[in-house]
Amino acid sequence: MGDPAGISPELTAKVLALPEIRDAADFVVVGDARLFAAGARTAGVQPEVDVRRQLDERPLTNRPAFLDLGHLDPADIALGVATRAGGEFALANFRRALELAAAGRVDAVCFTPFNKAAMRAAHPGYDDEIGYSSEVVGTTGPASEFNILEGLWNARVTSHVPLSAVAGSLTRERILDAIRLTDRSLREADVPAPRIAVAGLNPHAGDAGNFGREEIDLIRPAVEDAQREGIRADGPFPADTVFVRARNGNFDAVVTMYHDQGQIAMKLMGFDRGVTLMGGFPFPICTPAHGTAYDIAGKGVANVGATRAALLLAARMGAARRDRRVAGASA
Amino acid sequence: MGDPAGISPELTAKVLALPEIRDAADFVVVGDARLFAAGARTAGVQPEVDVRRQLDERPLTNRPAFLDLGHLDPADIALGVATRAGGEFALANFRRALELAAAGRVDAVCFTPFNKAAMRAAHPGYDDEIGYSSEVVGTTGPASEFNILEGLWNARVTSHVPLSAVAGSLTRERILDAIRLTDRSLREADVPAPRIAVAGLNPHAGDAGNFGREEIDLIRPAVEDAQREGIRADGPFPADTVFVRARNGNFDAVVTMYHDQGQIAMKLMGFDRGVTLMGGFPFPICTPAHGTAYDIAGKGVANVGATRAALLLAARMGAARRDRRVAGASA
Repeated sequence: MGDPAGISPELTAKVLALPEIRDAADFVVVGDARLFAAGARTAGVQPEVDVRRQLDERPLTNRPAFLDLGHLDPADIALGVATRAGGEFALANFRRALELAAAGRVDAVCFTPFNKAAMRAAHPGYDDEIGYSSEVVGTTGPASEFNILEGLWNARVTSHVPLSAVAGSLTRERILDAIRLTDRSLREADVPAPRIAVAGLNPHAGDAGNFGREEIDLIRPAVEDAQREGIRADGPFPADTVFVRARNGNFDAVVTMYHDQGQIAMKLMGFDRGVTLMGGFPFPICTPAHGTAYDIAGKGVANVGATRAALLLAARMGAARRDRRVAGASA
Repeated sequence: MGDPAGISPELTAKVLALPEIRDAADFVVVGDARLFAAGARTAGVQPEVDVRRQLDERPLTNRPAFLDLGHLDPADIALGVATRAGGEFALANFRRALELAAAGRVDAVCFTPFNKAAMRAAHPGYDDEIGYSSEVVGTTGPASEFNILEGLWNARVTSHVPLSAVAGSLTRERILDAIRLTDRSLREADVPAPRIAVAGLNPHAGDAGNFGREEIDLIRPAVEDAQREGIRADGPFPADTVFVRARNGNFDAVVTMYHDQGQIAMKLMGFDRGVTLMGGFPFPICTPAHGTAYDIAGKGVANVGATRAALLLAARMGAARRDRRVAGASA
């Protein structure tokens, strides 16, 4: 369960009431049972769950387990207000889910939206979900956010840095890492030989060096490195047409060089209906792309589509991961 | 008439056969009458024109004047091939049109698509239409390209420069100039009090200085300068949501900081159907946003919609300009 002051409680209840979701995986919901009940009332649904104080060894069933941390009374939360208490609630749930996954008790993690201000109030130094997850799980390799909309994936080489720092942050190795991680993550999501477009950095992808040389010196060599590894990468393509081609079905993923290069396109295409995946962890971490929607919290009108898509992706990737581990253990 | 090896000849003929175009203005077409006739055959239209070798002082009529430079035999042009001869043809037409406008003989200029390689072959040092027009007309003030799609205008502060040079190229004055030129150009196109959104430079418009300070140090001050001049500018807004809001009708124009920031969005929204306007000249210069479409040249299937929109915008802006000059002369 994510931030309690927005639509996360009702989304959590609403998505678990969907038959196709209950069939997709065995769930452990981490939160407070009182807040979950309030979310169910708001959403007008009655999903049955097994409330527990501890996650015991009994096999999980089609009825979701609800791990009740008992840490937040809905009466203490004002809808639509970012608070430290709200951040502490979401953070405790997220940490427990990450720990369960790191311990191999669950195969994937999914969360309903967080409020960044509340998270920062609860945990000074909280930067983003990737940084926090790396801290809890103890990973140090390249991790990256993927934005996924109806089968089209977007990854980026740089993210929350000033635009003036983008060009200086690019290296052939970082670009190759992003292409590799994109290829691996798509394969883990059951896309067997993903077609990956790599965007240029400069206008017209540099126009053969007239408007910048990063395409010639860094991006093309990284694409060729990836191709030598058997990855179906291509590019660099001009950023202002690559998403038009991707939307037409020419690619499964676009690797962009900086934050807005992908976000401008994805948001115009309706990314609020999409899914964000943190890649580069030993297990998938998914969340709906939209935010806490404080303006419609408690009204029962929140659209569950992106949350549904996030859970289905987490279920698919988690199951594939389990299959690989079983195959590996018996090999 | 633009490049002769693509769809420009048929577009020129096809658009002049439209009754609403013939009613919108008095036209002078600059080109070669043989190539125009070939274009009309391809398009399957028969627009009547008065072919002349010189533009005399007789008042123009509803029947377009065709200024026949007699400089290109269609037999000398292979469809779908960029050549120096093709570039020389388009460049001669463009130069004559600019000279007629600079001399006050016509009120606006419009051209069907050029091929950049052909233009460069014909005129070494040819950079773009803005640079060439400045050279011919002798202007030195700020000039800029506007991309216009169904009532939404996009202007940019920087254009064909490496991404690494964007941040260093921004100044409060340049941003203010772009906002002013946007406001003035929209007013000249009969949008009386244009609502202008200004995009930020950095992800999340800098997130209050966390990912860059240009929004605080340059962009916001420029927006406030513009507001003090009575311009309805607002921002800076995050680049990845400003076009979603603009598409919803919240703004008439978006001023972006760099090429792809606007082009990614405009091309996804279907800018190939749109119009490019060179602003900052004493008269409007318009062209359809798409290119020469060598792959469909001569087939008679070219869509005339963007050319039609370009001519209608040129006619509207040219007429408004004439009205202002008449008002100024009688004041």
